[in-house]
Amino acid sequence: MRTSQVLIPTLREDPGEAETASHKLMLRAGLIRKVAAGIYTYLPLGLRVIRKIEQIIREEMNRAGAQELLMPIAAPAELWQETGRWSFYGKELIRFKDRHEREFCLGPTHEEVITDLFRREVRSYRQLPISFYQIQTKFRDEIRPRFGLMRGREFIMKDAYSFDQDPASAILSYQKMYDAYDRIFTRCGLTFRAVEADTGLIGGSSSHEFMVLAETGENTIVYSDTGTYAANVEQAEVLPPTEVDTEAQRPLRKVQTPRCRTVEEVTKFLSVSPSHLVKTLLYSTGKETVAVLVRGDHEVNEIKVQRLLCVTELALATPAVVEQVTGAPVGFTGPVGLKQIRIIADHAIKVLRNVVVGGSQLDTHYVDANLERDFQVEQFADLRSARAGDPSPRKDGTLKSTKGIEVGHVFMLGTKYSAAMKASYLDAQGQECLAVMGCYGIGVGRTAASAIEQNHDTKGIIWPFPIAPFHVHLLPLTQSAQTVQVTEQLYAELQAAGLEVLWDDRDERAGVKFNDADLMGAPFQVVVGDKGLTEGVVEVKTRKDGLKIKLPPAQVAAYLTRM
Amino acid sequence: MRTSQVLIPTLREDPGEAETASHKLMLRAGLIRKVAAGIYTYLPLGLRVIRKIEQIIREEMNRAGAQELLMPIAAPAELWQETGRWSFYGKELIRFKDRHEREFCLGPTHEEVITDLFRREVRSYRQLPISFYQIQTKFRDEIRPRFGLMRGREFIMKDAYSFDQDPASAILSYQKMYDAYDRIFTRCGLTFRAVEADTGLIGGSSSHEFMVLAETGENTIVYSDTGTYAANVEQAEVLPPTEVDTEAQRPLRKVQTPRCRTVEEVTKFLSVSPSHLVKTLLYSTGKETVAVLVRGDHEVNEIKVQRLLCVTELALATPAVVEQVTGAPVGFTGPVGLKQIRIIADHAIKVLRNVVVGGSQLDTHYVDANLERDFQVEQFADLRSARAGDPSPRKDGTLKSTKGIEVGHVFMLGTKYSAAMKASYLDAQGQECLAVMGCYGIGVGRTAASAIEQNHDTKGIIWPFPIAPFHVHLLPLTQSAQTVQVTEQLYAELQAAGLEVLWDDRDERAGVKFNDADLMGAPFQVVVGDKGLTEGVVEVKTRKDGLKIKLPPAQVAAYLTRM
Repeated sequence: MRTSQVLIPTLREDPGEAETASHKLMLRAGLIRKVAAGIYTYLPLGLRVIRKIEQIIREEMNRAGAQELLMPIAAPAELWQETGRWSFYGKELIRFKDRHEREFCLGPTHEEVITDLFRREVRSYRQLPISFYQIQTKFRDEIRPRFGLMRGREFIMKDAYSFDQDPASAILSYQKMYDAYDRIFTRCGLTFRAVEADTGLIGGSSSHEFMVLAETGENTIVYSDTGTYAANVEQAEVLPPTEVDTEAQRPLRKVQTPRCRTVEEVTKFLSVSPSHLVKTLLYSTGKETVAVLVRGDHEVNEIKVQRLLCVTELALATPAVVEQVTGAPVGFTGPVGLKQIRIIADHAIKVLRNVVVGGSQLDTHYVDANLERDFQVEQFADLRSARAGDPSPRKDGTLKSTKGIEVGHVFMLGTKYSAAMKASYLDAQGQECLAVMGCYGIGVGRTAASAIEQNHDTKGIIWPFPIAPFHVHLLPLTQSAQTVQVTEQLYAELQAAGLEVLWDDRDERAGVKFNDADLMGAPFQVVVGDKGLTEGVVEVKTRKDGLKIKLPPAQVAAYLTRM
Repeated sequence: MRTSQVLIPTLREDPGEAETASHKLMLRAGLIRKVAAGIYTYLPLGLRVIRKIEQIIREEMNRAGAQELLMPIAAPAELWQETGRWSFYGKELIRFKDRHEREFCLGPTHEEVITDLFRREVRSYRQLPISFYQIQTKFRDEIRPRFGLMRGREFIMKDAYSFDQDPASAILSYQKMYDAYDRIFTRCGLTFRAVEADTGLIGGSSSHEFMVLAETGENTIVYSDTGTYAANVEQAEVLPPTEVDTEAQRPLRKVQTPRCRTVEEVTKFLSVSPSHLVKTLLYSTGKETVAVLVRGDHEVNEIKVQRLLCVTELALATPAVVEQVTGAPVGFTGPVGLKQIRIIADHAIKVLRNVVVGGSQLDTHYVDANLERDFQVEQFADLRSARAGDPSPRKDGTLKSTKGIEVGHVFMLGTKYSAAMKASYLDAQGQECLAVMGCYGIGVGRTAASAIEQNHDTKGIIWPFPIAPFHVHLLPLTQSAQTVQVTEQLYAELQAAGLEVLWDDRDERAGVKFNDADLMGAPFQVVVGDKGLTEGVVEVKTRKDGLKIKLPPAQVAAYLTRM
């Protein structure tokens, strides 16, 4: 394609609206344009990337035996009411009323619609397992849509659903999808990891997230250095400590810690290690206030606390509540003498001796506090986030940590939806049984954005070959007859070799063309200049490593095909 | 693909919800399922048809130089307010508010969004002409969604938009799209006609509709028997009559016509031809009541009346208004003595002599009424619908009439949207000029439905080859080793020959398989039976004409490829 025949409005400067690399570069390289917050137009180059990712997904879904269909974007409220998600989903669900005042939502996901299809059209165990997928526009009214396609309100998603006779068979379907996801992200040319994950709003018994590794990722992943374990830090288990502190108990002392509120300030002031301080955090669940104890060098994992308490709401207690419960301002809460409320603690607390805790009084801490003797804990559990250096919960090594972007998510749903909607089949004995379901999503636009987060430099995008909008950027530097003739020849030859070529036929300076080519990030650039042609060569540059080689024009197609 | 691996829930009976052939057959052949009124899921077979039509459209749009992009479904109210369509579009526009109470609509068409993109990203006349297209889900909250995909509320549409420097160039862009449409519907294997059409809600100066010809079509088309003229009957011009009635004027007489109200009743009773009766119809425009005169054998064309009166509202006057204006009940209105209101007449009235008109009194008519002497007309115009037998307005023959289904519509918009939204470019002199626009739509689902309306019989669908979900339906009649072996061989060979094969691997009776195959309508059926195999042959049936021939299995692929 010639640049003059396609709208690629590149920008020299970073647009003010963008914070992340992928958002900036998608705008600067002319891939997308904003229409409203979290709502974008895919320009021709952006759409090419989207379509390539979709096609890889489609091929691998078909290979996994999933059937492609297309469900509507608008779903009637009645279906969502059956599962209770009409009220549960809250403001993220975009709703409208039609001219007859009937309520609909714009599907953020399609469990209800597919389960309705299943219960109407699938009858026999002989039809199982069966799985369906679609590539469809989804809506989610995010509080803070941001980072371009990374967190949009209207976005393209592949969603798939499997229906099985029993959990054992459902695990096979889940594994098939897991394997397909593995192939998809591999084929997209991305470095990624599948990690154990929380099931969140979708529900179900287990799930894995597929994370594209990138320093700018919003998610922290921990993984075993020598084994296969990997999990979202939100989800990663932490084993109870195996070593017990055997230090003799010293007497409890109350000490002044003026203006020391943070763990860092207190431990520095008292010259103790943060691992010998116990943080006491008060949380409100809506129903009660709970104290959570973790080591000073650990972080409370609120999802684990929620799970332990069986609550969906959890927030740090307000300063007013802290004062009311402890009698002291925030920063000095401690378990000694703490009455009225439940105290739960991370496993690590159990083995500590002679620790520092808050004094329940301004500028005061206790030192040499000891469990049982000085404070009580109602329940111990895994309540902290894993971190690098922890032993792997699978006992297959030590955890390392990295950042990732969630691009895919597979869920084992069980019978959550089939039970709510009575989606059953007849088994071999003619008995009605609930189908066991799984669901599987890939954010298509987010995959494109994460590819950029993972593959860019200061000059622009470095597209992985399989999802690049074009493979070769052909850059004639002048309009001389010879340059034009060689360019035309190369354009024809490269296309004949199966490569997608963008020919920069603009009458622009070489510098502008080079900058735009680096920004747009085709894997290869072929530079045709008068100077080179007098020597009988053109220059081929690999975008990724900047490697440049000179070749006679006739050898370029063969060289690039080999690469 | 094997039938056991794809959900094709065929139905033996016509579903009660469906009226038209395409709706019934799409449900029966397992192509679609209803989720809500006018909102459907495309099942795997239906989606295959949709994707094939989309691909043909895409290739021809690209060939016409249009750039594919993808605009969002949700559009902010502000853009629609700029053109005034936010209020003008009424209840057909689905609207919602986001969590911040900002208003959006679900685009039924995308003039506003594309014009906004143009004004932001296109600056110079050097970038023109430029045209864009997308294949996107659209929403239109129809009062009466019906006929399946024919008139849905959520539907897939290809919409394209062209931007030119001036009207002359815009006509070339329009013609390019017109030609692309011609190729698209030809490639889809449809019999169609492009006709002159009304511009309706989109506005603009001229338009053509692409009509798939089918007896069940909602539109009537008239076309010249020997020339190229063709138009929607709503739009077709009627030339003024060239022959004048030279009969001598007879005296006006009032006669009793008991219980005769309709043209047929009156003319039969008085033994005159309907062409010598003048119908007087009273219309209310919201502002006034107007009398419209047409010949007894002609039909008033309300769109022409609206255009003449420059009103958007027009309805037959209520019986109460008729009685108040004429002093007589409905059925006896006539122009003689009709005061207070404007009288307009079709050109044909001008040349008549000695006509029958209503008597403005119950059971009464005038005979031998004459223009000027007995009644006056304020204005003559083309106010009737064309019909078969009329001379072509291009004077290139006589009109014939047929029925059609609108599948595509091309509009010359002029500067309607670019003026409202200040979408301008800089010309060679650096002057800001408004872009001249065109817009072009194809209903993808409707194209599929109209293909069925045009191509079906009592047994089911007869797909045109290019958009058939499968080319060959492979029907083994038994599970014998020989049949299975030959079927497997054929399945491989036909696919290797580039044909898409659906293999009915169900353990069903031959009759069930034959019925389903005829219903689903693949162009070819290959029947593999034990009996034939003993003679070394299988049977190849052409769905369209029912032609059956017996061939050795090894010759089938070559035969079908030739066909």
